[in-house]
Amino acid sequence: MRIAQIPPLYESIPPKLYGGTERVVSYLTEELVKQGHDVTLFGTKDSVTSATLYPVCARATRLNPDCKDAMAWHVYQLQLVIENASRFDLIHFHNDYLHFPLSNQGHYRHITTLHGRLDLEDLKPIYKKFYDIPVVSISNSQRKPLPHIHWLSTVYHGLPKDMYQAGDGKGNYLAFLGRISPEKRPDRAIEIAKRTGIPLKVAAKVDKADAEYFEERIKPLLDHPLVEFIGEIGDHQKEKFLGNALALLFPIDWPEPFGMVMIEALATATPVIAFNNGSVPEIIQEGKTGFVVNNMQEAIEAVEKIRLLDRSLCRQVFENSFTSAVMAQKYVTLYEQICRREGKVFHLQTPPNWSTKEKYASYD
Amino acid sequence: MRIAQIPPLYESIPPKLYGGTERVVSYLTEELVKQGHDVTLFGTKDSVTSATLYPVCARATRLNPDCKDAMAWHVYQLQLVIENASRFDLIHFHNDYLHFPLSNQGHYRHITTLHGRLDLEDLKPIYKKFYDIPVVSISNSQRKPLPHIHWLSTVYHGLPKDMYQAGDGKGNYLAFLGRISPEKRPDRAIEIAKRTGIPLKVAAKVDKADAEYFEERIKPLLDHPLVEFIGEIGDHQKEKFLGNALALLFPIDWPEPFGMVMIEALATATPVIAFNNGSVPEIIQEGKTGFVVNNMQEAIEAVEKIRLLDRSLCRQVFENSFTSAVMAQKYVTLYEQICRREGKVFHLQTPPNWSTKEKYASYD
Repeated sequence: MRIAQIPPLYESIPPKLYGGTERVVSYLTEELVKQGHDVTLFGTKDSVTSATLYPVCARATRLNPDCKDAMAWHVYQLQLVIENASRFDLIHFHNDYLHFPLSNQGHYRHITTLHGRLDLEDLKPIYKKFYDIPVVSISNSQRKPLPHIHWLSTVYHGLPKDMYQAGDGKGNYLAFLGRISPEKRPDRAIEIAKRTGIPLKVAAKVDKADAEYFEERIKPLLDHPLVEFIGEIGDHQKEKFLGNALALLFPIDWPEPFGMVMIEALATATPVIAFNNGSVPEIIQEGKTGFVVNNMQEAIEAVEKIRLLDRSLCRQVFENSFTSAVMAQKYVTLYEQICRREGKVFHLQTPPNWSTKEKYASYD
Repeated sequence: MRIAQIPPLYESIPPKLYGGTERVVSYLTEELVKQGHDVTLFGTKDSVTSATLYPVCARATRLNPDCKDAMAWHVYQLQLVIENASRFDLIHFHNDYLHFPLSNQGHYRHITTLHGRLDLEDLKPIYKKFYDIPVVSISNSQRKPLPHIHWLSTVYHGLPKDMYQAGDGKGNYLAFLGRISPEKRPDRAIEIAKRTGIPLKVAAKVDKADAEYFEERIKPLLDHPLVEFIGEIGDHQKEKFLGNALALLFPIDWPEPFGMVMIEALATATPVIAFNNGSVPEIIQEGKTGFVVNNMQEAIEAVEKIRLLDRSLCRQVFENSFTSAVMAQKYVTLYEQICRREGKVFHLQTPPNWSTKEKYASYD
């Protein structure tokens, strides 16, 4: 198939540093090319891809100090896509709602993966208006605030199968990996370590926005013999950091639509102890690839049971469900489904009854 | 004519507090209604207008603490406009480039007033791409960074004729009115006062973003018998504040596309001493309605000559050139010009030669 991928332009593909959406678009793009598809990526010129790169702007906007108006580039990108639309069987957007008024006019086949949280009041009117734009969720949990829009399927994010090798967890420590922020609850991870007596390694970056939170709330907690703060680590260090850990702690306090670090841990054969929120219960199989807990007491009990889990099962679940090959295959199935429909048929023709959940349920 | 006005949604129409673009849209809308046109305003529900209000969102986004994603409302607004486009002879956008990919498809007649500065590198590709969208500048100076796009005309902002009455300037002070910010150069105003020995009154708000600048750079300068800082003032206080002043000082240090406070001063019959930047030389007539200066020495000489100017001429120039009636009449002329063209004819058919200035010069 001839497929266009439309990522945000905040980061290059893949991102030079942090950047969740752009990283997933990179994995998907590379895998689609590998599977023989003709893929065009409308990304920043500093992207690295085996697909055809249609360069929209010279540099990713977030790390470019000269960029004062990132939106101008995103609107420009839309126009480039429209002008080239006839060259593709399908256009895959990763830019939220920005293209909806244009794509709604039905001149091309398209699909949109929603990467962000959807529980903002601001989003309701626009998604209600565009209830018939075909969209994909990255977890079932993500759909909850907007159950009645045109969900095609949930496609979980995936990592390249060989990106990480299984580790043996013999480092005898718990791992925390991510940003230091109130939503990620590093304080909970530290409390778990102190109450179980098992060392914790914290590999995390501190964004400017979270500097105050780090200084005031987290730094004082780090001064403890069981806790080691090792700062931000890159992709190449993650394999060892995660693979040597007894478990990844994922004590989040927000409905995270998809927690990438959970599948990174599974890829290294490391189980996950996660607080029950957002995508957690969809990704972690209770008592198999980790434990889904509801409070601190359950978290501590989970740590005590963690050595009983079969680590090879974690890796196996990763290979079966969370590789970029699996992700790409699911997307291709959806692409084909869209392409089989004629013309604008893939747009629903009558507004849904917003009180009738069943009527426009998922196509799964 | 049946006209739609599409303002930003950051402020209500008119704004409850600060908000340049939304204020001008309010003046224009009220004047068009007064002139007998059928006007629909796609604004926030808390707007106050004699036009038909099409409410897009309940509250203006900037002052709504619950608003986390203002862009969602702006994209939603575009869709509402498209759905209703056939009801209007012409759609007047005040939202920069956001609608360009949609309006470019030519299903409705439209005109766009560009309200912001255009000298950002980020803007070049999108305006080059949409070189044929008909746009209006708010000063000729504003066009400089993008001379080759489809400029229809410059239409200066205007105020309701009766908003302010002429004052006699007998307060024997110089006035500074606006935001405290490095671009507005209140420090220059203070230096002018000190060097001429004429008192200065500073009526200005301090935004959060400028708090440090105010504390460190400006506050120390305010402790002087000639300088009085009176804080932020509302519209109803401006008449007296400006009308009693010998002159308004407008010592800006950036290419401000249109300085509203200059015409507010002229409306109260108060001349303006302004540094030569942006729209200044288009608004101020040298030696008649004020002085356009290039440095501090010229500013001081201007203050010494200011009593020689005929204040009634300032008011007269305001009435002739800078009322909302004049502004609305100029826009109506442009609306009619657009409506006389058939179909997509008002879009240029071939790309301009970007090295040939003359080819797509203004329609003036």
